[in-house]
Amino acid sequence: MERHDRIVEVVSKHNKRDDLWIVLNGKVYDLTDFLPNHPGGQKVLLKFAGKDASKIFNPIHPPDAIEKFLPPEKYLGPLVGEFPQEEEILTDEEELRRELIERKPPLSQIINLHDFETVARQILPPAALAYYSSAADDEVSLRENHNAYHRIFFNPKILVDVKEVDITTEFFGNKTSAPFYASATALAKLGHPDGELSIARGCGKEDIVQMISTLASCSFDEIADARVKDDQQQWFQLYVNSDRKLMEKQVKHAEERGMKGLFITVDAPSLGRREKDMKMKFDDDADVLEDADDNIDRSQGASRALSSFIDPSLSWKDIGHIRSLTKMPIVIKGVQRKEDVLLAVDHGCQGVVLSNHGGRQLDFSRAPVEVLAEVMPELRAKGLDKNFEVYVDGGIRRGTDVLKALCLGAKGVGLGRVFLYANSAYGENGVRKACQLLKDELEMNMRLLGVTKIEDLKPELLDLRSLPNRTVAVAQDNLYSNNYQPMTSVEFKPEQD
Amino acid sequence: MERHDRIVEVVSKHNKRDDLWIVLNGKVYDLTDFLPNHPGGQKVLLKFAGKDASKIFNPIHPPDAIEKFLPPEKYLGPLVGEFPQEEEILTDEEELRRELIERKPPLSQIINLHDFETVARQILPPAALAYYSSAADDEVSLRENHNAYHRIFFNPKILVDVKEVDITTEFFGNKTSAPFYASATALAKLGHPDGELSIARGCGKEDIVQMISTLASCSFDEIADARVKDDQQQWFQLYVNSDRKLMEKQVKHAEERGMKGLFITVDAPSLGRREKDMKMKFDDDADVLEDADDNIDRSQGASRALSSFIDPSLSWKDIGHIRSLTKMPIVIKGVQRKEDVLLAVDHGCQGVVLSNHGGRQLDFSRAPVEVLAEVMPELRAKGLDKNFEVYVDGGIRRGTDVLKALCLGAKGVGLGRVFLYANSAYGENGVRKACQLLKDELEMNMRLLGVTKIEDLKPELLDLRSLPNRTVAVAQDNLYSNNYQPMTSVEFKPEQD
Amino acid sequence: MERHDRIVEVVSKHNKRDDLWIVLNGKVYDLTDFLPNHPGGQKVLLKFAGKDASKIFNPIHPPDAIEKFLPPEKYLGPLVGEFPQEEEILTDEEELRRELIERKPPLSQIINLHDFETVARQILPPAALAYYSSAADDEVSLRENHNAYHRIFFNPKILVDVKEVDITTEFFGNKTSAPFYASATALAKLGHPDGELSIARGCGKEDIVQMISTLASCSFDEIADARVKDDQQQWFQLYVNSDRKLMEKQVKHAEERGMKGLFITVDAPSLGRREKDMKMKFDDDADVLEDADDNIDRSQGASRALSSFIDPSLSWKDIGHIRSLTKMPIVIKGVQRKEDVLLAVDHGCQGVVLSNHGGRQLDFSRAPVEVLAEVMPELRAKGLDKNFEVYVDGGIRRGTDVLKALCLGAKGVGLGRVFLYANSAYGENGVRKACQLLKDELEMNMRLLGVTKIEDLKPELLDLRSLPNRTVAVAQDNLYSNNYQPMTSVEFKPEQD
Amino acid sequence: MERHDRIVEVVSKHNKRDDLWIVLNGKVYDLTDFLPNHPGGQKVLLKFAGKDASKIFNPIHPPDAIEKFLPPEKYLGPLVGEFPQEEEILTDEEELRRELIERKPPLSQIINLHDFETVARQILPPAALAYYSSAADDEVSLRENHNAYHRIFFNPKILVDVKEVDITTEFFGNKTSAPFYASATALAKLGHPDGELSIARGCGKEDIVQMISTLASCSFDEIADARVKDDQQQWFQLYVNSDRKLMEKQVKHAEERGMKGLFITVDAPSLGRREKDMKMKFDDDADVLEDADDNIDRSQGASRALSSFIDPSLSWKDIGHIRSLTKMPIVIKGVQRKEDVLLAVDHGCQGVVLSNHGGRQLDFSRAPVEVLAEVMPELRAKGLDKNFEVYVDGGIRRGTDVLKALCLGAKGVGLGRVFLYANSAYGENGVRKACQLLKDELEMNMRLLGVTKIEDLKPELLDLRSLPNRTVAVAQDNLYSNNYQPMTSVEFKPEQD
Repeated sequence: MERHDRIVEVVSKHNKRDDLWIVLNGKVYDLTDFLPNHPGGQKVLLKFAGKDASKIFNPIHPPDAIEKFLPPEKYLGPLVGEFPQEEEILTDEEELRRELIERKPPLSQIINLHDFETVARQILPPAALAYYSSAADDEVSLRENHNAYHRIFFNPKILVDVKEVDITTEFFGNKTSAPFYASATALAKLGHPDGELSIARGCGKEDIVQMISTLASCSFDEIADARVKDDQQQWFQLYVNSDRKLMEKQVKHAEERGMKGLFITVDAPSLGRREKDMKMKFDDDADVLEDADDNIDRSQGASRALSSFIDPSLSWKDIGHIRSLTKMPIVIKGVQRKEDVLLAVDHGCQGVVLSNHGGRQLDFSRAPVEVLAEVMPELRAKGLDKNFEVYVDGGIRRGTDVLKALCLGAKGVGLGRVFLYANSAYGENGVRKACQLLKDELEMNMRLLGVTKIEDLKPELLDLRSLPNRTVAVAQDNLYSNNYQPMTSVEFKPEQD
Repeated sequence: MERHDRIVEVVSKHNKRDDLWIVLNGKVYDLTDFLPNHPGGQKVLLKFAGKDASKIFNPIHPPDAIEKFLPPEKYLGPLVGEFPQEEEILTDEEELRRELIERKPPLSQIINLHDFETVARQILPPAALAYYSSAADDEVSLRENHNAYHRIFFNPKILVDVKEVDITTEFFGNKTSAPFYASATALAKLGHPDGELSIARGCGKEDIVQMISTLASCSFDEIADARVKDDQQQWFQLYVNSDRKLMEKQVKHAEERGMKGLFITVDAPSLGRREKDMKMKFDDDADVLEDADDNIDRSQGASRALSSFIDPSLSWKDIGHIRSLTKMPIVIKGVQRKEDVLLAVDHGCQGVVLSNHGGRQLDFSRAPVEVLAEVMPELRAKGLDKNFEVYVDGGIRRGTDVLKALCLGAKGVGLGRVFLYANSAYGENGVRKACQLLKDELEMNMRLLGVTKIEDLKPELLDLRSLPNRTVAVAQDNLYSNNYQPMTSVEFKPEQD
Repeated sequence: MERHDRIVEVVSKHNKRDDLWIVLNGKVYDLTDFLPNHPGGQKVLLKFAGKDASKIFNPIHPPDAIEKFLPPEKYLGPLVGEFPQEEEILTDEEELRRELIERKPPLSQIINLHDFETVARQILPPAALAYYSSAADDEVSLRENHNAYHRIFFNPKILVDVKEVDITTEFFGNKTSAPFYASATALAKLGHPDGELSIARGCGKEDIVQMISTLASCSFDEIADARVKDDQQQWFQLYVNSDRKLMEKQVKHAEERGMKGLFITVDAPSLGRREKDMKMKFDDDADVLEDADDNIDRSQGASRALSSFIDPSLSWKDIGHIRSLTKMPIVIKGVQRKEDVLLAVDHGCQGVVLSNHGGRQLDFSRAPVEVLAEVMPELRAKGLDKNFEVYVDGGIRRGTDVLKALCLGAKGVGLGRVFLYANSAYGENGVRKACQLLKDELEMNMRLLGVTKIEDLKPELLDLRSLPNRTVAVAQDNLYSNNYQPMTSVEFKPEQD
Repeated sequence: MERHDRIVEVVSKHNKRDDLWIVLNGKVYDLTDFLPNHPGGQKVLLKFAGKDASKIFNPIHPPDAIEKFLPPEKYLGPLVGEFPQEEEILTDEEELRRELIERKPPLSQIINLHDFETVARQILPPAALAYYSSAADDEVSLRENHNAYHRIFFNPKILVDVKEVDITTEFFGNKTSAPFYASATALAKLGHPDGELSIARGCGKEDIVQMISTLASCSFDEIADARVKDDQQQWFQLYVNSDRKLMEKQVKHAEERGMKGLFITVDAPSLGRREKDMKMKFDDDADVLEDADDNIDRSQGASRALSSFIDPSLSWKDIGHIRSLTKMPIVIKGVQRKEDVLLAVDHGCQGVVLSNHGGRQLDFSRAPVEVLAEVMPELRAKGLDKNFEVYVDGGIRRGTDVLKALCLGAKGVGLGRVFLYANSAYGENGVRKACQLLKDELEMNMRLLGVTKIEDLKPELLDLRSLPNRTVAVAQDNLYSNNYQPMTSVEFKPEQD
């Protein structure tokens, strides 16, 4: 292709549905044929037809995305010249956000995991916040995940020598510094330019396992390369692609790169309705939409984007096949009933993650810790609790949450959003601080529980009686309440004039 | 009658209790004798004595109301001339409302059924909103209907091939596109000039069953005529009139017009106290009342208006008679105890609707879904769950709500207010969008539940343990709460001056 | 005593602890010796020493209070002259209150019993409101009394002929128009100048039983004289005085005046701490107290005032004696355990009122309706439910509340504050309207329950399963809640500039 | 040491880590060697290096702290001259606080224990409030301690002669005026200059037992000396020091000084995370920290400070040894499971305090009153309830709370923060008033319960059914709630212009 074909003025004219070029990081691509297959929908491509889309492309695509999905002949060559910088006009909200970034609290003042979210909420770009924080439908399961831990209380032991407390444990036979891990989350670059890499480094330095998402915004190899020491443990989270050959390649590559576990996500045959995220799209698209037909169905934009990576026909019979592909421990992620835990055992898996995908898939799915309390007695009764590892994720914010799950019988717990928020706000140092805070809480609270080793955490240390006390109050009697005048505390003398 | 008798100036003088003419849509009527029999009470007739009442008459009466209730000789002939247009003075509230109509969100931004209500609340005339939204007494059952769904959680299955999901089902042997229907609601014209007709058209295009109310603001035939295709299903909802001959005529006419089911409402022997609606009447009447005796009992205005259509002596023995009049399936609507479900079986009915009339009748009647959870095991134990169809309505807003009812054993669910709000805000397109949204949610959530066909929805997919956890909290300790200083999140650095 | 001794200037000088005259309604009294025995405490007498105290005396003492408690020689004769009218300086609050009295809603707009309280709250003098509305300690039982009704739902019957509904019943064999009564309350004159008399007249005209308080602000005979017809039923509520002779006189007099029942209050051996009331006293006394010793214990002012009327040594053996004094049915008022109901039977009583004194005595005493649900099965099991009548009071605001109590087995229910508020806001007409509203609600809701006679109200019409679901939530997780961003409804388009 | 060495100008120069002098109450000390051993951390010493630290030292150290911990040779002699007074610049908050101290309500207006906290909250220095009010993690147990009492209701008896009520009782055979005591709390001087001494005097005058903290801000002997009469009872609370010789000395000294009980705290092997307290430290340190490395871990400042007094290796075998050292009754404080109560019996202890340290240690530890309800039946079944005394503390604010604990079987209850707040706000008189208020409430409520002696308080007087009803509500449905328009009370007529 001729040089002059790739100068800005010419590229700009290939801006139609049937003649659609786009510039990414200085390279010109012809996306005309790819348009209907774009997982993120056609709209965004049409919006950037004949333009430079690097700024919106980079944070949500790993660098190898182009090569993976586009035939090489569609690369037309390097751009000649440069698109003129668009002058940025900041909204008041955006100005405030940038000011808040300047005024971010120092990391030393972060004293618990909640604080990371508080900071991130205020400095994340709105679309990133919407993507990270959103959950399915009315977000009931999202909050129930956390709330359920508040229905479990402790029966601590006293007068136990707790001078030395050891919070280390093993996952699939590999030693780790604490019984939690950074769970797989997509699109870390939306919050921090280092994306999943700073999570990898922070976890590595703290000797905490990281689970790598199929949908990470860095490429799998970049993240594997980011390990800070040879024996740093990582796991690979797998969305089973409809293209099974591609999937097989992914599994084998993961094993080659030293992944210590393969976590197959099974709770996302299609992606849940996440309305905060959906609303955000409308805002972004406001200019495009102004003249658009009001009846276009845009409600499935994000879902369809990611769904094409995920095969809805995946079933138990596929698990046997995957089992045969690798020596890595295989763990089913997204299990929500004890029957399915037993099926995982039957299919030769090494473990399960009890999870409802952070409340992002089926609303009114139950809190994983509640499912855990049902699963473990069953496994113990069947003698299956020794060689089969049960993990939980969702809603964990405190060392006491972790201890509750471990007392019930979990081998470890995963945290997802917390690491995204810590990373978004403070990068690698934030990730480390998150690990440290949680370790500190774990150690202190084990001491207060009267326990010195992870394996001594037992159900008898818990009061589970109120775990089923998930209630909905009878609707308020507004007329009666309007009339009730609350009692008042003692009053100070009035100010003198 | 002479022409000059019907000129505006003359008509205006027939404005007394014992000489009362009223103009409706250009026709002059003598309502002197009819005054005491007006279902809506005498007051409104006296207010419009000698005037043109079309504007207030049309939205709440079907066009055939006059012929049905007035002897032909009371029609005095067409008005000669025209009443002078009253200059409209808008209140601030009314001006805001009209401005909000202009600023209504585009239909594309409606992403769930709640949104229709949000829009409708702000653009409906206050009297219409009061009528639609009000419920009995303290509106406890109204909200309990919805809340009860939040006490049911799911036990979803994983690793089921859910590539193809089918949400179609059959009601009384007739195929329908989804397991929900538009329930009968009165006075749709209060919210939209097309009234029940746009609901009929929207449902027809979406292949959703519509139940036609006896008290619709369009005439029954208009609504039947509004079907968009021959096999569009409609049901007829019957308030049994004290005049049994009239009732028999209604039933036979319904059958002739192809209604696929006869739903006899039995929970309204008298109409419930709906205080929001009652308050609205006071406002409307403010000018009339200023000089009135302060002791007039107006508390039963609306109730009495509609009650005269409904026979409080209706009892089980009437059901047998109605059964003999028609071949349509007969369904008892408003059942609230399992004993009465069994009686319905005994009386040869084909089904019941478990319903408390949207919380508009007896406050503290239970949520239908709670009754459903008791009824179905009983029917199954008696082998009656196959040839007898159980429906529920009340409080449904989400696809997950529908799935919960279906897992419990409901054949289908009805939505009433949602369709009124969708129709009021966006007419036929709103009705269609409401259907589409609910279908989308159903399909997606069946997939996430691990179910591909309606008949595979089973109670074991539900966690019902907290269904009875309908609680009322011990009253707050205000003094203690006043003193408690909530924890605070991390703070950003102060702004620099 | 000489005329000049009783002129204003002279009276004013008898203003010391050991020489204390006070003027009441134009009469001069020497209260020096009475000072230590004043049930309302010495402070108020000292405040009005040498002054005219009529304005503060009249609303809280029946007219015969002086003769009853003061030896005749302490009356010194009529005042000569007149105390100069003190110029009234109104606080902003008092001006607002007087303006609100002018703007009081017309009685026709009162549509439920709650509304009376709303009006009364805003127009009552603050001290009256504090006295009426206050309850013990943290006012938990006060609100629990009402809340408990919200934990009971209905199982209504359908297809019952409810054309004719009869809400009349009998109390102790005497027919009455509805199954509720106006319970005894003290100090009605604080709210309305007619005091208990307008309650008597209003109840009489509505054929509702009134219970007359020992501590009424009108004299017993005045209230008995206020009956509007010969067979109007009244009951007498008795605080048993330490002076048993006085008590015997009261009982016999009550019988002579035709009282149809004697209700002995037993839940007030000393009066509960009512902190709103206590605080009010401080405000009133602000001027007196300014120079006073800060350590005076004023916390028991009001309690001690009324307590001296009540003998804390009252016990079961006294009941037998009282039983022998009269033929009136004897009812123990203030029973809170089923054991004591059985003791009442054993001691020859005709009934009990399950009551915690409107939450004004022991905080955390249980809601009477909850106790009722335990008592009645016990009485039925022992065959005692026929000739022994059980009443309840506390927290009743709706017809459905009454029906719940009656379904459980109560013979009737008492309302106290509601009648005080209705009377305070609208006098006799308010009392009538309160009766009418409650009757209307009863009749309508019996129809909706599928019941036509009081005796057909049965426990099976209730769902009592959540009655014990009196919960206290685990304390809120403030950090988590701070971070959660609630979902938002659809937004209207922005205003155009 | 020469005189000129101790003049202000010279002392000021010894302001470095390796040459660190500090002035306390006019005496110069060399703290260079002590620096790494300071329980309160090095930072504060560095901040005051070469300066006068009396103002910050005195409120948190007993006067004998220096002699106890510093070798005599480190005292360099009296300061010569005086440090110039630093000019005080008040923040707005501090100005408001000082104004509020002036406007403090008179003690006579304090009508319940809550009021002390209301006053103290507003007049305490922020750091003192943070230290007193803070609790562990999310402060769930803090509030649960109080809330749990609200899940217990009464079954009061009637018609019992309650003229004479006796609230006196015995603790370990020693008579006391009421069944409660002032529990051990540290650092009373933060709130009031008299510190623990005014608590000692107030309790003495009210004949209430005081428990003296190992960490009191007055010295043990000062507090023992503050007794107002010979037989005033005090108990000694012991944190077992790693230096067992020191501990033995403390125990023997306590016995010599007439302590009537030895309470060994066992729930604090390390000090809980108290985030309000931690945050306060950041504010205090703001100036020091500005240039500091942002990554310093300061999160354990306060904890480590106090922790060094407490041996985390303390275990049951130490209890036997302590038992052999003294004749005082030995009580284990901080027991949270019935198993450990039985172990305390086995180890020869005379009692336990069921306590979670006011919610300051392990969050989600259970409310002591809930544990009590499980422990007592076990002790009774084993016949151990007679010679073994069970106490509870945490969350008590009302006489009814005390009665509930006593009905369950507690011998007495402890209050900690309440006495700190009463003392901080009003000194000795506040402490007395707190005792009086609680005694008054106890006496009144025993009368209302139908009980005249402490030993007649029995479990059957309680309704414990809702004690386990500790619930967490299903998360709110925000979209539904946004749409629900609450009912409104009747409205007054509009104001006339």
